Amino acid sequence: MTGNKAPIGIFDSGIGGLTVFREVFRNLPGENIIYFGDTARVPYGNKSPETVLRYSRQIVRFLEKQGVKAIVIACNTASALALDRLEQEISLPILGVVKPGAVTAAEVTVNGRIGLIATESTVKSGLYETLLKSLKPELSVFSKACPLLVPLVEAGWVDDPITLEVVKRYLAELLEKDIDTLIMGCTHYPLLRKMLKNYLGDAVTLVNPAYETALSLKRMLEELHLENPESGQPEYRFYASDSIEGIEHIVKAILPEDMPFTAGTVAIEEY
Amino acid sequence: MTGNKAPIGIFDSGIGGLTVFREVFRNLPGENIIYFGDTARVPYGNKSPETVLRYSRQIVRFLEKQGVKAIVIACNTASALALDRLEQEISLPILGVVKPGAVTAAEVTVNGRIGLIATESTVKSGLYETLLKSLKPELSVFSKACPLLVPLVEAGWVDDPITLEVVKRYLAELLEKDIDTLIMGCTHYPLLRKMLKNYLGDAVTLVNPAYETALSLKRMLEELHLENPESGQPEYRFYASDSIEGIEHIVKAILPEDMPFTAGTVAIEEY
Repeated sequence: MTGNKAPIGIFDSGIGGLTVFREVFRNLPGENIIYFGDTARVPYGNKSPETVLRYSRQIVRFLEKQGVKAIVIACNTASALALDRLEQEISLPILGVVKPGAVTAAEVTVNGRIGLIATESTVKSGLYETLLKSLKPELSVFSKACPLLVPLVEAGWVDDPITLEVVKRYLAELLEKDIDTLIMGCTHYPLLRKMLKNYLGDAVTLVNPAYETALSLKRMLEELHLENPESGQPEYRFYASDSIEGIEHIVKAILPEDMPFTAGTVAIEEY
Repeated sequence: MTGNKAPIGIFDSGIGGLTVFREVFRNLPGENIIYFGDTARVPYGNKSPETVLRYSRQIVRFLEKQGVKAIVIACNTASALALDRLEQEISLPILGVVKPGAVTAAEVTVNGRIGLIATESTVKSGLYETLLKSLKPELSVFSKACPLLVPLVEAGWVDDPITLEVVKRYLAELLEKDIDTLIMGCTHYPLLRKMLKNYLGDAVTLVNPAYETALSLKRMLEELHLENPESGQPEYRFYASDSIEGIEHIVKAILPEDMPFTAGTVAIEEY
């Protein structure tokens, strides 16, 4: 498959980026997709910029070898720490989740006070804040690293009083700042959407970068005339750097029943 | 430095193994030590046996190149998933934390009912249970994977009501089994010792494999006549696969004030 029929490559530090895959697959139902999750080295959220860039480069090389026509960085941390450099290094169109999330947050805020919850490395990078202020210099941005939310989601405690306590503690200082918009700046957080919505009520609008990224991708493919013209069953391939078992059952839960897909392990450090 | 003066190599998936370093440095004050933390790929506790073995092999090759005289696997997961194979593959004496922990638990239990808290991969390996039953077939062993405890410790919430709630939930099913001994089967857990002790009271004895491993190492070096005869200031070297910043300030907190040490980053995937 080449040209317009070539697949879109989506990558993440692990399985969290499947929330982005889900939005892309829903909003661009005709596209072939290759997903790579770096499950052998997950998470990225507490690792250094150098390490996240090195890992992201290897994954981009792997996706290039698979002949993708465009790349989506589904991981907020990798988008924040590696997208800039990767854009300069490769000729393929490449998109991260941070910018689409920032653009939407800047649009929806009424009082100009935006909260960000994300990993430590994403918060440290300051990229959401930089982008938001370049869009509208008058915005105030308040960021909070929430390192426990990913493990809580991965433990399956998404509707749990302990998770709610943790959420309350993390959000307390953002709420004191009177935010009216909250960016869910890590792929796992949309799985806590219901809890966040219940706790925050209507006063705070939640922004899901995964959804916004799928829409940005759609616009980008249209502008570049890269949409897939075929209307048959698209091909979905899932790769991971660790054993594929963990990812397979989540993919089954995301895809409609009996939707075919293939999955495999990749020795990513060789790329 | 060669022969008896050669350093001991200690490795872990990250910084948790510094609890083992601390015990070794306290109990074998004359030994030179090299510590390696795989901070670029941490954690190991949710990764597959194949991946943990591959990573451990690279680290062992690195330590061999540094001329160590013996190796301690400070990580419970790596001890459970990789020690067996590494023992066959290398000629250096090598020791994990699982066996010393199991031996002590088998000795201290009165009612023969032992609990284990550990990572998912350690629990899945079944190694603690196998070792305990080979020591005393009549023992009953109850294991519980506690994936949230490492992130809670790393968040610094070691004396926090939320952490206590999590601990209570994890321990509930072990306490129902009437255990009288609990193995803290992950390097981070001794940092929750006070909380565990307060909650469990005197009815349950806590076993710290880090401490037991230091004593085992001491005996092993004596038996092999490998103790360092020098009485000067030992040399401590710390390496990590990610940026060294994170590890440096913890090392400073563990070592006595003004104790000299060196630290650096290693591209571990090249070994």
